[in-house]
Order: sequence, then structure tokens, then C-alpha cells
Amino acid sequence: MSFLKNAWYCAAWGSEISREPLSRTLLNQKLVFFRKEDGGIVALSGVCPHRFAPMHQGTLHGDVLACPYHGLQFGPEGSCVHNPHGEVIPPALKLSSFPVVERHAIAWIWMGDPAQADPAKIPDFSAHDDPDYAMVGGRIPIRGAYQLVSDNLLDLSHTQYLHPVLTVPDDPDTSYEYDILQDGDTITTVFNTRNLKPISFVTFIWPDAPQRLDSFSGVRWQAPANMLLKIHFVSLDPTAPAERRIWGAELITPETDTSCHYFWATARDFRQNDEAFGKMLGEITEKVFTDEDGAMIAEVQDNMGDAYDLIALHPVVLPTDQAAIRARMILKKLIKQEERDASAEPA
Amino acid sequence: MSFLKNAWYCAAWGSEISREPLSRTLLNQKLVFFRKEDGGIVALSGVCPHRFAPMHQGTLHGDVLACPYHGLQFGPEGSCVHNPHGEVIPPALKLSSFPVVERHAIAWIWMGDPAQADPAKIPDFSAHDDPDYAMVGGRIPIRGAYQLVSDNLLDLSHTQYLHPVLTVPDDPDTSYEYDILQDGDTITTVFNTRNLKPISFVTFIWPDAPQRLDSFSGVRWQAPANMLLKIHFVSLDPTAPAERRIWGAELITPETDTSCHYFWATARDFRQNDEAFGKMLGEITEKVFTDEDGAMIAEVQDNMGDAYDLIALHPVVLPTDQAAIRARMILKKLIKQEERDASAEPA
Amino acid sequence: MSFLKNAWYCAAWGSEISREPLSRTLLNQKLVFFRKEDGGIVALSGVCPHRFAPMHQGTLHGDVLACPYHGLQFGPEGSCVHNPHGEVIPPALKLSSFPVVERHAIAWIWMGDPAQADPAKIPDFSAHDDPDYAMVGGRIPIRGAYQLVSDNLLDLSHTQYLHPVLTVPDDPDTSYEYDILQDGDTITTVFNTRNLKPISFVTFIWPDAPQRLDSFSGVRWQAPANMLLKIHFVSLDPTAPAERRIWGAELITPETDTSCHYFWATARDFRQNDEAFGKMLGEITEKVFTDEDGAMIAEVQDNMGDAYDLIALHPVVLPTDQAAIRARMILKKLIKQEERDASAEPA
Repeated sequence: MSFLKNAWYCAAWGSEISREPLSRTLLNQKLVFFRKEDGGIVALSGVCPHRFAPMHQGTLHGDVLACPYHGLQFGPEGSCVHNPHGEVIPPALKLSSFPVVERHAIAWIWMGDPAQADPAKIPDFSAHDDPDYAMVGGRIPIRGAYQLVSDNLLDLSHTQYLHPVLTVPDDPDTSYEYDILQDGDTITTVFNTRNLKPISFVTFIWPDAPQRLDSFSGVRWQAPANMLLKIHFVSLDPTAPAERRIWGAELITPETDTSCHYFWATARDFRQNDEAFGKMLGEITEKVFTDEDGAMIAEVQDNMGDAYDLIALHPVVLPTDQAAIRARMILKKLIKQEERDASAEPA
Repeated sequence: MSFLKNAWYCAAWGSEISREPLSRTLLNQKLVFFRKEDGGIVALSGVCPHRFAPMHQGTLHGDVLACPYHGLQFGPEGSCVHNPHGEVIPPALKLSSFPVVERHAIAWIWMGDPAQADPAKIPDFSAHDDPDYAMVGGRIPIRGAYQLVSDNLLDLSHTQYLHPVLTVPDDPDTSYEYDILQDGDTITTVFNTRNLKPISFVTFIWPDAPQRLDSFSGVRWQAPANMLLKIHFVSLDPTAPAERRIWGAELITPETDTSCHYFWATARDFRQNDEAFGKMLGEITEKVFTDEDGAMIAEVQDNMGDAYDLIALHPVVLPTDQAAIRARMILKKLIKQEERDASAEPA
Repeated sequence: MSFLKNAWYCAAWGSEISREPLSRTLLNQKLVFFRKEDGGIVALSGVCPHRFAPMHQGTLHGDVLACPYHGLQFGPEGSCVHNPHGEVIPPALKLSSFPVVERHAIAWIWMGDPAQADPAKIPDFSAHDDPDYAMVGGRIPIRGAYQLVSDNLLDLSHTQYLHPVLTVPDDPDTSYEYDILQDGDTITTVFNTRNLKPISFVTFIWPDAPQRLDSFSGVRWQAPANMLLKIHFVSLDPTAPAERRIWGAELITPETDTSCHYFWATARDFRQNDEAFGKMLGEITEKVFTDEDGAMIAEVQDNMGDAYDLIALHPVVLPTDQAAIRARMILKKLIKQEERDASAEPA
């Protein structure tokens, strides 16, 4: 499978990376992550080039990681800095090293040409470390190709069928708005529900919710699969104006061709100091993504066998798939462009 | 693997199919089964053509099945009858539909050309819903190619080695008859044992069995792998003429190339109202087929690796394999014929 | 994968083989082992040529093994000696038979041309049934290609990193000697440590060890992967000369391309009658080989995917790999030679 290489992917929540080396497979590559003594994050190939030992089982000496099998020591840039069994250090004895930037509580990794790793290209998830917001998050392993998760989020019409907690009952006074906006390679979907009675999820986050409210939701997608989910409820009670806002980070990073990491977080602008509520919100979110979306995507992947490209299997496409299809086309274009650029490089 | 398509296969016991959609893979195809409000059985492709969701997790509205992912609704003939997200229903948006006939307690499915699905071709298992008989049955998942089960049943000489409950002790007064009869594409084997002392199984079903009896058994095989097992004991005590008859339905339907469903049932003409006895008879039968035949077939398949055609692996063939070899040849002929007919069809 | 066929492999510890047929896969072949009534060991193909049933589930009648499925009986040379269902015994109805020699407590098998199975070629592990020594041993299943275990043992520098119980602390008075000796196709490595303070393992086997000692260790490798590990401690206290010697048998036999059997034993020339100590020594040895070496090799294999030839994956080779590389070259040469000889044979 061809992944987009020159792009920022979420490798981990910053909080996952410590002085204890962390093993994670991204884009079919085994990597090891750890923090230097100054707190900076290091991302290296997770496989020792000598005898293919798992580097995450090694030991940190300062900023130097020693292989668990024969003790070869590698510096934070990946080169071997010490061979305890002799003076020979062949130049090939190095681990690949990958740029990492920690921003918005996220460890972003660049798996392509390091010279192009411009932090200015990191997508904006600033709500997730904004002091006005409270954030909870996690990582869900998904047994399905990563684009299936983008498809899922770019067509929120599924919430009515897959998520009991988000189901809107029949109501002639409730109306809906759908739209798809495109700005360059960024797609934003609009899934608004007007004049809604509080559904189960609203009652949970807003126990004294008004009798009627507007729900503004939608997803901002940026390649390869970094999405910002907007959840915004506005009271329609003119005597008590109020609103509640949640920004969801939905960051999907391929693990293998047919599995991925789903990094999720909710940042909320209400009940920020209510830790018990935050914990429950996190648990509910994780449960919905795991038991409902994740389980469905695993079933879909199972129906696709070893294939990872849904489109190549000729699904019947509906108008509601338009955003997902556009996202797949943009990604395809970017990957092709990257491959063209790579083959055009002087030898 | 090429399966015979224009044939009736057992899809399920009628009692397995209800208003709760049932998922089952037959001939490498995922299917969903449910009953309409009038009791009729529906068999549809189990994979939604839109986003490959598992239809058996959907919801029934009357006779209409809604996809669990985006709510598309499909009628009992498989066509999409409602798209809740818009008016567009592309003609390709349909589930394949398969003829099903419920007869002799069995749901028979036809996976080939529906125009040829003639119920008159359903093999006769009338004992299994005959009011003079009492029936117990079930389904055993077998980790082996379906023809291995036919091989097993068409050579009952294995009972002496694999099934302690059926082992006949050495006895010079006991004699044996074997034969193979063929009538068109139907094969019937004869495995009679004359002047037998009651073996363990006889004592179980017939506690006051006579001291000597004749056992008439054998198998009627019809393609692809539907077998009727005859078990018939006749007392040799002239002062107390008596007999006991069991008809076994042994219906083997491929699941994948190297796994199958073993639908079994016993219909008995004695102790029909003794439910406790019926339950024990069912348990013993299922245990023998699962722990003895099923386990052996799984070992054989394991020794065959991913292959499904035993003959292609050049086993040493013995005279006792004659019935099994003939059945394999008939099946091969029918599959070739079907493929020839298919390629001869006008475009 | 091409294995060396004309060579003695450890099939089992003699103590593993009894009148109960034993199933074991060696060099991708399923085999069955049992003892004849006279105690001799029989090794036959484990798959019945009739219907591919697992022979190890069969029954022994004297020296004859009956197939568990249809009762065909095979003699200790593999030919079918009785078909209970008729008089026909086709000549092809036989199990492959393999020469086995029991020596030094080990059942050695020859999987190649039986005419070349010369017991004089069995490598010397005489310490393992020497009455002056006490032996404990076992078998560890390894999820990795067999040559990875030779690599491991031929570069004992890993002990310092992988085995806490063998780690030598920094000590300016301690010195090291490495060497590689080659005699024909036999490689012997030298890993001596001079003027060592007792490490954890020494204290365990030698509670009243002297304050300083020399450690002489090393490995004798013979193709395909039979190794003798030398562990020899000599007191440096001139007032109390003493020494302790352990010979380790490290016999690696391929199971499949990417898994192997690790037969290990320790034969010691001290505390020979201390059974509790012997048991603990065995447990510690097995734990180190399983949880440290075995686990590491499984990780390495995982990093190699389905490949079995580390060298083909272009690892960075260090001087410390020299013995392992030489062993791999000798083995490659022997396999090529064997293939050349086989293709040169008259038809």
C-alpha cells in the first residue's frame, strides 16, 4: 500500500511518551519513541540493524538507547555511538530517525523527506491544549484500513443508526442542514440539526438543557486523515441564552494496510473542572468509538478480506458519500504527486 | 474452489431461522436469513453493497431489513426500497437474493441460476418431519473441506476404529455384507452386520434388546453432499420379533474451501415421546460427530494444509474407498457440466 | 527452505519416547515416534497415506501401529502389514521410515539417504550420559528459524545484556579472551573471563565459591545446529584449588521454516546427587532459554516476517558475528553439496 509520506501524522499523545521506550507501528514500520532528558521526543526505527532486536526493550542511558540483545548504543539522531564489543562501528549501523513535533498535546511525526518537515503544516488542534477547555483523550486500535475511519466521520448520517446515544427521534419541528465545503485540500462537512429536543447525549452533558436547541456539527478533514469534529449546542430559549461546545480531535494513523490507530480527544468549554464528568465523557466517547464505530469498521474490513481500498471493490456510491469520496480523491492526488516528485529527483 | 451451484444445499434447520436475522457463510458467500411476517424464509447477501456493512446486524421493519450502518432498507427480494438520506436509489443498490424452500424441517437454498431452482429436485428426507418419527438435530462446524465428510460417511468401515460406542467385538458367528448401488447420480452403500450381539449403542437405544440381531445400515448419497444414513436393527429372537429404525440426515454444506457445516439429525420410530431419551440420543450423536468424526476430519485437513482436494494430493486408494471415489467423480462431472453450460449461454 | 538432510538431528530426548506414540514435526515433516517391545526406537511418517489420518493417534499392537481412522496396520519399517477390510495392500501403502540411533540420552534421526546414515557421524555429547555427571534437560519450542539460535549461541557477548544472572559487573581487574577455532567443519568459540568475582549464577551453583575465579566458556558447533556449550569455573584461591564444570547440550532441530525445537541439557560434575539442586538448575536454565533467548529470538523472527534467512535481509555484520557467519557459510556449503550430489545421481 502507498501511504502519504510527506505529511504530519499523530504518532501518540504527548502523555504516552516518557523515559520508558514505547513501541508503535506506523505505516507498516516498527518505531520506538522516548523522551530525551530535556523532554524532547525521539522517534527511531524500532528494529536494530545488527540482529533485528526490538529496540523498545532496550535501556536508556541519558539520551542514548542501548539494544537489549548485544548492547549497541544509538544516539537520539539514530547513529550508533558505542559498540561495547570492539571499536568497529560500520556507517550502516544506524537507526532511521524521524522528525517529531509536540503541539496541542499531540506528538506529530513526519515519515517522509525530513527536509520538508515544516511544522507550519501541522493542522490546527489548538482547542486541545487551550486553557479555556478541558481535554480527555485516548487511543483505540482499529482492525480496519485507516480510510474507513475517515469515511465514517465524513458521513455523520450514520449516527442515527449506529449510535443510540445520538439518535434523533422523529419530530416534524426538527430540520436538518447538510453541506460540504472545500478550501484547497481541506474539506469541511456541515451536519446541523435545528430545533432539536435534547437527545440522550445532550442530557448527559447538559442536565438542565433547554427544551429546544440547535445542534451545529461537522468535520474538518485534512490529509492524510486528521479530523476536527465540531459539536456545538445552542439554546433556543430566549430567556436563557447558553451554549456548549466540544471539539473532537479524530486523528487516524495507519498501523498496517488493514489496521490503524484512532487517536481521539474531546476538548470542552464547560464543566472544565468537573473531573468526574470529564472521566465519564471520556468513557462514553471511547465506548461509542470502540463498540460502535470500531466494531462496525472491523466488520466492514472483514467483508473486504485482505483488501484495503474500498473503492477498488466497487461499492455503490450515494450522494451522502460525497465528502468521503472527495477526501479519497485528494489523498490519491497527493500520493501520486509525491511519487512523481520522488521519481523526478536527481540521482 | 468450484462448488456445484445449481443444487439444493441445506442452509439451516428451519428452527434456526426466525425474525432475528441469522448470519451464515455458505460456499464462500456471507448470507443473512430471516423469516417474513408470513413465516416465509428470506436469504439475501449478508453484505450491504453501499459500505459492506454486515446485514445480519440490521433491524427488521416488517419484511424489510435495514442496514445497521446507514439505515438503507432492503425488501425480501433484495432490492433497496428506501434510502433515508435522499431520494436517490441507484439500481445497483440491491442484495443478491436466493431461492429457499422449507421442507422436511430443513431450509434448502439454491445458490445457482434461480430459474433452475426446481423444488422437485430436493432430496427426500421425509422421515425427518414424519409424525411417526421423533427427530432431534443440530449443526456442527467442521474445520475441513466438505467432501472429507462425504468420504467419511461413504466408508462406514471406520466406525470400528473411530467410534468406541459402535465397535463390534470379535465374534465368529457375526458376518458382514458390503455393497455399493448406483442409480443415476445417486449412490447407496450397504453395511450390514448379521447375527450381532448388542453393541454399546444398541444397548443404549434398546435396553431390552434381544441377544442376537441383524444390523442393516448404509448411506444414500446425493450431490453435492446430502446423505441419508440408515440404521436399522432387527431382532433375531423368533419369540419376540421387533425392530428399531433410525434415519440420519447428514447434510454437508461448504462454508469455505476448507470448512463446512455438518447438519445432522436422527429420526427414530421408537420411544418417540420419551423426551429425555431423545435429548440423550442427540447429545451422544453430536458428541460422536464432533469429537470423533469432526476431530479426525480436522486433523486430516491439517495434514492437507490449505488444499481442499484430497485426490489431488495422491492418497493411496483402497477398495473400501470406492463409494467415496464414485461420489467425487459424479460431483466433478456435474460441476464441469455446469461450467460448460454456463460458458455456452448466449451473451 | 532447504534443510541439510544427510545429517543427524536430535529428534527427542530418549526419555520422551515410549510405547505411547509421540507426534513431532521436524524439517517440515510430521513424524510419529514410538518404542518397539525390545526398546528400539521407531520413526515413521506421521500421516497415513490412505486418508491422511494422524498416525500418533493410532494404537500399538506389539511393534505394529494401527491407523486411528480405518485400522490399517504398519510395521516398524513402515510397510502396511494388514488391511482389516480386505486382502488388498497396494505397494504404495507405506509410511516413510527414518533411521534413529539412541546415544548420549538423545534420539538422533537421519532424514536424508538412509544408506549414508553412519552412526560414527553422531556428534559427541558423551558427558550427557557419563556416570560422573548428573544431567537435567528438556525441550523448548522456539518461534524462530533454527539458525537464529545458533547465531545466539555462537556470540556469547549477548549474555552481558540479555541474561541478568550472567551479567559481569564492571571490574578493572577482570579481563576477557575471545577466539574462534575451526577444525574442518567444526567451529569452536572461546569466551573466557579471567579473574572474575562470583556472578549471580556462580553463587547459585557454588555457594562457597572463592572470591576470584576464572571462567572458561565457549561453544562447539557442528552442522546443522548441534552445539556443546562449555561452562567451566576454576578457583583462583591457591589455598583451595577447586573447579566446577557444566557441559550444555544445545541441540537445535528445525520444526518449520520459522520455528524450531531447542533441546537443552546441562551435565554437571558436582552436586551430582543433590536432586533438589538439579531440579533448580534445570528450572533456571529453562527459564533463561525460554524467557530471555527464546523470547528475543521470537521478536527477531517477528521483525523478519515470514523470512527465515537473516542474511538475505542484509543485517549489519560485526566482528562478533564472525563465528555465526562462518557456521552459516559451512551449512550453506554442505546443503549445496548435498543438492549437487543428489542431482548427479544416476536415474
